[in-house]
Amino acid sequence: MSDSEKQTMATKVVDKMYNNDPFSQWLGIERVKDGAGDSVLRMTVRKEMLNGFAIAHGGITYSLADSALAFASNGYGQMAVSVETSISHTAQVKEGDALTTSVREVSLTRKIGVYYIDIHNQNQELVATFKGTVYRTGKDWFPE
Amino acid sequence: MSDSEKQTMATKVVDKMYNNDPFSQWLGIERVKDGAGDSVLRMTVRKEMLNGFAIAHGGITYSLADSALAFASNGYGQMAVSVETSISHTAQVKEGDALTTSVREVSLTRKIGVYYIDIHNQNQELVATFKGTVYRTGKDWFPE
Amino acid sequence: MSDSEKQTMATKVVDKMYNNDPFSQWLGIERVKDGAGDSVLRMTVRKEMLNGFAIAHGGITYSLADSALAFASNGYGQMAVSVETSISHTAQVKEGDALTTSVREVSLTRKIGVYYIDIHNQNQELVATFKGTVYRTGKDWFPE
Amino acid sequence: MSDSEKQTMATKVVDKMYNNDPFSQWLGIERVKDGAGDSVLRMTVRKEMLNGFAIAHGGITYSLADSALAFASNGYGQMAVSVETSISHTAQVKEGDALTTSVREVSLTRKIGVYYIDIHNQNQELVATFKGTVYRTGKDWFPE
Repeated sequence: MSDSEKQTMATKVVDKMYNNDPFSQWLGIERVKDGAGDSVLRMTVRKEMLNGFAIAHGGITYSLADSALAFASNGYGQMAVSVETSISHTAQVKEGDALTTSVREVSLTRKIGVYYIDIHNQNQELVATFKGTVYRTGKDWFPE
Repeated sequence: MSDSEKQTMATKVVDKMYNNDPFSQWLGIERVKDGAGDSVLRMTVRKEMLNGFAIAHGGITYSLADSALAFASNGYGQMAVSVETSISHTAQVKEGDALTTSVREVSLTRKIGVYYIDIHNQNQELVATFKGTVYRTGKDWFPE
Repeated sequence: MSDSEKQTMATKVVDKMYNNDPFSQWLGIERVKDGAGDSVLRMTVRKEMLNGFAIAHGGITYSLADSALAFASNGYGQMAVSVETSISHTAQVKEGDALTTSVREVSLTRKIGVYYIDIHNQNQELVATFKGTVYRTGKDWFPE
Repeated sequence: MSDSEKQTMATKVVDKMYNNDPFSQWLGIERVKDGAGDSVLRMTVRKEMLNGFAIAHGGITYSLADSALAFASNGYGQMAVSVETSISHTAQVKEGDALTTSVREVSLTRKIGVYYIDIHNQNQELVATFKGTVYRTGKDWFPE
């Protein structure tokens, strides 16, 4: 596939995933960039996402990163499912903070992909770092 | 502290955490048991928690486990913050599934606690297994 | 396969793995039990395994757990390779300590297995807890 | 501290750690660079480090990364202990391969440090990626 065909495929897959994803929509996730092995997502933290410390619940940044993992790893047009993920929360996230993902594809074999996903706030401060491992099933999103 | 004083402290701390936690409330988390080093939580998966595969977004089970980690590790009356967490999603979670946490405190030192948290559905099937490490700050929730 | 056939297969696979494994032998690993999804290993910490704090290097307990993961997950007779592993060192390990593994197979699907492996010392104290995820290739150890 | 004082401190700490570390010496670890939050280590894989697949045992790359974590996080002159580590083995390591660490300090607070450590072989191929979280005890290596 050419780069432009790759891009078209990634957008087509993530369109299909995102348009049927009520939770990503509840989070207010906005897609800045789709890609094969890449996904830039942005969201703003709302009051209903806070925990008992008045900071974002750990599940919010995890969910954002997990969506980026799903979009990036499925962006090749082949189905991939998460098998292991971990996250470290490195700075507090407050109401109104705008969060952005950046994905690094560390390793990609026929069957396994490994991704690091950092989340920064509007001040370019790292608030969470996430590692995700996916299993690639070999099934196409759009079989010909 | 006696067992009954420990239980009272755990409930007092988790009351304070939970009553000011809009996201745990959005999730519909119900506290079945509070404890020092323990937390049994239950929730039912709603349509708005699903992802593009029509199963629960990975962030939902993560959030449930992360709340159980926070409640269990703070239940001693001393503040604890998460430093590293990981989760494996081992079976699909569907709309209407009722999820329950079970916490195993693997290790507890003055400064660090390690917890395994399993999540089962209404058929006692394991749907996720979570590992959380917390740093214990030494600050009391209710200084005398 | 009957239980006894399963046991025979596990022993046959682990014999083959262990007999060609110079590092497990350097560690002095002794096989107490082979099994499909199980592996009890024992070893004694020697002076050359210590680090700059005069306690066992973190790599020693990791290596023991990683061998148990390989033996347990390959014990079904089908090749399995590690895709992600994590370990927490929960107590100091000293020269002369006798370490034993206990394996819990958390989840096993056609393609992915998840294992928790605890390591205790001779006083039944937990010194490390390990989580391992394997990918099952579908290739048999002894094709007919 | 000036940069040169920092460098002197890092070398002094790692000298003390390494000179009393029989396992790092057994591994044949060579220090290419010491630093506050950094550590470049190099080692060559020997026959006795292989496993039953005739590739390096997972414990070898783990041990190399774990040493780099210890050296980098203690390089500030303050004692730090590992609380959680994980590793993904992304390519096979063979006898004779020369492995090098590169450390990224992701986050550093007064009490917690998070590090990513990649290991490459002599062909600049990534063979393992490691994540380590340390607890900083507040004790100085060389109290005045």
